[in-house]
Amino acid sequence: MCYLRTTHICNMPIIDVGTYQVHVGDCWAPLNQLIASRPQGKLLVIVDGNTRRHCLPLLRQKLERRDLTIISVPAGESFKHIDTCTRIWQQMLDAGADRSSLVINLGGGVIGDMGGFCAATFKRGMDFVQVPTTLLSQVDASIGGKLGVDFGALKNGIGLFCNPLGVFIEPAFLLSLSPRELRSGYAEVIKHSLIADAAQWERLRRFTNLDQVNWSELLTPSLLIKQQIVSADPFEKGARKALNFGHTIGHAAEGLALQSLDPLLHGEAVAVGMICETWLSHRLLGLPSDQLNDISSYLVRLYKPKPLDKNDFPAYLELIAQDKKNEGDEWLFSLIHPLGRAVINQPVSPQLIVESMAYFNQLIS
Amino acid sequence: MCYLRTTHICNMPIIDVGTYQVHVGDCWAPLNQLIASRPQGKLLVIVDGNTRRHCLPLLRQKLERRDLTIISVPAGESFKHIDTCTRIWQQMLDAGADRSSLVINLGGGVIGDMGGFCAATFKRGMDFVQVPTTLLSQVDASIGGKLGVDFGALKNGIGLFCNPLGVFIEPAFLLSLSPRELRSGYAEVIKHSLIADAAQWERLRRFTNLDQVNWSELLTPSLLIKQQIVSADPFEKGARKALNFGHTIGHAAEGLALQSLDPLLHGEAVAVGMICETWLSHRLLGLPSDQLNDISSYLVRLYKPKPLDKNDFPAYLELIAQDKKNEGDEWLFSLIHPLGRAVINQPVSPQLIVESMAYFNQLIS
Repeated sequence: MCYLRTTHICNMPIIDVGTYQVHVGDCWAPLNQLIASRPQGKLLVIVDGNTRRHCLPLLRQKLERRDLTIISVPAGESFKHIDTCTRIWQQMLDAGADRSSLVINLGGGVIGDMGGFCAATFKRGMDFVQVPTTLLSQVDASIGGKLGVDFGALKNGIGLFCNPLGVFIEPAFLLSLSPRELRSGYAEVIKHSLIADAAQWERLRRFTNLDQVNWSELLTPSLLIKQQIVSADPFEKGARKALNFGHTIGHAAEGLALQSLDPLLHGEAVAVGMICETWLSHRLLGLPSDQLNDISSYLVRLYKPKPLDKNDFPAYLELIAQDKKNEGDEWLFSLIHPLGRAVINQPVSPQLIVESMAYFNQLIS
Repeated sequence: MCYLRTTHICNMPIIDVGTYQVHVGDCWAPLNQLIASRPQGKLLVIVDGNTRRHCLPLLRQKLERRDLTIISVPAGESFKHIDTCTRIWQQMLDAGADRSSLVINLGGGVIGDMGGFCAATFKRGMDFVQVPTTLLSQVDASIGGKLGVDFGALKNGIGLFCNPLGVFIEPAFLLSLSPRELRSGYAEVIKHSLIADAAQWERLRRFTNLDQVNWSELLTPSLLIKQQIVSADPFEKGARKALNFGHTIGHAAEGLALQSLDPLLHGEAVAVGMICETWLSHRLLGLPSDQLNDISSYLVRLYKPKPLDKNDFPAYLELIAQDKKNEGDEWLFSLIHPLGRAVINQPVSPQLIVESMAYFNQLIS
């Protein structure tokens, strides 16, 4: 069952997913409308140090309501845990927030996931909207209702599914991002093409330098893929697992790096994961070796990843054992074959996982 | 919209609420059936010190599966907070729990609410069943999908709505309860009659000594009231607020007492709340004074409550200001009028709340 529908108003796409809409482009009028249509409750804005400085001024300028309560948390994935939630809940309590309040999550994936989780659980649920400010969150994290925080090294270990009232995507926020952050978000754009749109992959692989990219134009096709998959399977019982391509080993890499002095951005870790899992797709499903080579070499050229430390391999396996897609004793991956189509629930042995990481290390050596 | 349906199999009532069933009586066969019908995942049982000793042996004897993972937490409302959740999540992680696992919450309201919350948020949601062991949780807390923990003095401040796969009520567990705990649970039985069944109130008020009560017989009528209300309004948008009668001031009393050396059991606090809120029903809605007197004197005789410390009145008001039913600046109560019917969303001023507490103090002096 797919609720997908796209309309354009003055060149501004609106993507419908049943209970909520994703507004891409000039999103401020619909956001103001949504706020005005509700009972006059508190308006809370969750930001981190970066979005407080770079994005909050534009939000303040565009919102008709002036009485905002700002809840600020430190920036970065390393603060995406339950202790930060406790700080957010306390500030919600201090602000007198209640079920008639609305929370605006102004930030990247961390703010969207964590702020959404805090809103969805405060007094058993306040409404919230997502205003994603990074490429990664605009094409991926803000859509689909997945909320939560990390638990130790277990990425998104604690959370729930709960939809926002709406997602409001302002491409102008991308101007505040560093090349490294843009590159990180681009990994999900690549992933969407590999799992669902081979023609789009052919276009993307021509971008050897991301300065050539018009990001606004890339947002909508990527969002449409994400929404099509999410609408068909909102609670990740089946088809939605396709989106996890690159994320099983990617999450482990991200979780381990999080505890080191040299953390990886999410998309950088997913790039590593996609290389390993494309190799697994070749080895287990017969993805042709020229496609494996094309994908791997493109990702290596773009992300220039570092080798994986062999001493960490057992720790990788331990984290992969905790992956949310696993069932009982089977470790299940989402792979691709043919290019442009995902194949979910593929059991992979620890031995092959190690081989895929060895392939990765050999590739970049 | 009400999904309510009751059937009896060999004198064992089954109450249907759309997505799940409440089994009252010999509930072990259906629980074993449910477990056997699922993929063979881990089976986790959350207990506290009391239910580990008094209830787990019977559960072990009745369950066909032998491979239980026991997660034990300290007993009592004072441990119903997010730090205990962190301990539970860690034990789930250590046990290798995943989305194919099933959690059995074996305990009173604290275990049901907190264990359910931990299950519903671990890896974004594991299935769980409620096996309530106290009168309070059997007639009330285990039904309706409200999950969560306290946040400071804010009762159930963090949580969500999520239904269990089933509720399995074994009246034999009531034999392990002290008279004080039975009396606490009985407060919700009284509440159900006051908000929904005047004839039942006439029967209950004849019990001057709880030794006279056949608890098994009282369970089903109370459960039917609760389920009828919950089915009509699962997310507490309207009619379900009826169940909060006695709980606005009651929760404040419970929250404050929680921080003292002399904590109140939930039902004891609700009895205090019902006396104050019956007075408010009299004062604001015209509930006849003879009914006010009947209800108050019955509750005083049964619960022998202590006076409320006048110095705490500001703290009561502060907690009531945080009540989840409030909207914007209005403090909303659920009151009764006529006896046997609830009236929701009644705005009450701080001044009148203080007067109701003064009435309470005068009554018991």
